Amino acid sequence: MAQNIYDNPEFFAGYSQLPRQVRGLGGAPEWAIVRTMMPDLGGKRVVDLGCGFGWAARWMREQGAASVLGIDLSQNMIERANALTMDAGIEYRIDDLDTLNLPDATFDVAYSALAFHYVRDFGRLVGVVSKALAPGGHFLFTIEHPIFMAATHPHWISDEEGRKVWPVNGYSIEGERRTDWFAKGVLKFHRTLGTTINTVTAAGFQVRRVEEFAPTAEQIRQMPELAEELERPLFLIVSASR
Amino acid sequence: MAQNIYDNPEFFAGYSQLPRQVRGLGGAPEWAIVRTMMPDLGGKRVVDLGCGFGWAARWMREQGAASVLGIDLSQNMIERANALTMDAGIEYRIDDLDTLNLPDATFDVAYSALAFHYVRDFGRLVGVVSKALAPGGHFLFTIEHPIFMAATHPHWISDEEGRKVWPVNGYSIEGERRTDWFAKGVLKFHRTLGTTINTVTAAGFQVRRVEEFAPTAEQIRQMPELAEELERPLFLIVSASR
Repeated sequence: MAQNIYDNPEFFAGYSQLPRQVRGLGGAPEWAIVRTMMPDLGGKRVVDLGCGFGWAARWMREQGAASVLGIDLSQNMIERANALTMDAGIEYRIDDLDTLNLPDATFDVAYSALAFHYVRDFGRLVGVVSKALAPGGHFLFTIEHPIFMAATHPHWISDEEGRKVWPVNGYSIEGERRTDWFAKGVLKFHRTLGTTINTVTAAGFQVRRVEEFAPTAEQIRQMPELAEELERPLFLIVSASR
Repeated sequence: MAQNIYDNPEFFAGYSQLPRQVRGLGGAPEWAIVRTMMPDLGGKRVVDLGCGFGWAARWMREQGAASVLGIDLSQNMIERANALTMDAGIEYRIDDLDTLNLPDATFDVAYSALAFHYVRDFGRLVGVVSKALAPGGHFLFTIEHPIFMAATHPHWISDEEGRKVWPVNGYSIEGERRTDWFAKGVLKFHRTLGTTINTVTAAGFQVRRVEEFAPTAEQIRQMPELAEELERPLFLIVSASR
């Protein structure tokens, strides 16, 4: 079973204060680009893997999705999602992406935001998603970028000339990474970019677009601390279709 | 016109001594993986963009390619390639990938090794390649990995705890990069991984496989200095088809 860090009270207390939780999708700087990669949702059956508080699920229903099934491992998340949602077209369910099963060909869109880097066996999960999608189905997901995750100690450092740089090491050595983020020892799984793309392709998807979040000039003007996100890729965003 | 660094005598003298020039394909550690991504070459018409000394052109003919057109900007390279080649099925031509034109639908395979990071307008070139390929054609290329190229000063440094790390900065800022490599001020063009993949897709290709060169245990045993290539990706290898 996956580490359920989101039900750690210390972690959850900190995480719940992130702008993307308090303000929803508009508090997530990458949403501006993710939104442009979203397929037309009119009448579509959507599954949201790692749905958190349900911000995306509610937005997708506003865009005309016929139904959204939101899945999350965290009881805290699902309770908050239910409390925030008044919509019979949205169902939330506690489940583990490491062992998830879905019925075949029952969804048109699979979406996931910042959840897959917690998943140990990405190949298994992508296989489940592929089978769960009807022909022509879309798959859109965001993960922490492998360049952000790879290092033993991922943090800003200065080079000999005082330039702020992001250190990369261990990139080709895939597997567990432990970091301290709202709690000690948060467990994530590093995979190279090649592995991520090839796993999607091997499951029968055609990769449509690959983006690496970078803030726009307007975003930096409104929130100057975003400028550092130009220096190294923070999120990887992949859209694919069957 | 592209910077023709390969006809700089100082650069050429150093570059010619690289194992990949002296020993050919077997001297290029990434060849082991590139080779597995090569389509069946039997009877195929191939264009090799940035053919250098023609090592790949000659190998492709041994694999049964009907013809190979090798293109390179460097007169030094093309002279050496001609001197090394006794094969009427291979033609070498001096041309600039920044302004190259090719006849429509006249090739089955387009190949390029470590040349595209010298090209200013990648979108233009990929469009030319796409039109030059017959339906079902294959496109296989290697470039310096954007993580390797991005930084202001790309070189190994130590973090506060003495770990060897590769510094990344300026990743999202695409465009010119100048480095000293056998000569001062070698001009390359940094593009993000997303831009590279999306440019290929936008030109009508389907991305088949994306690899980031990492040495095998056996390669490291034979050449221990390759171990550092596990720390950060050096080459990006993309295969696509129309």
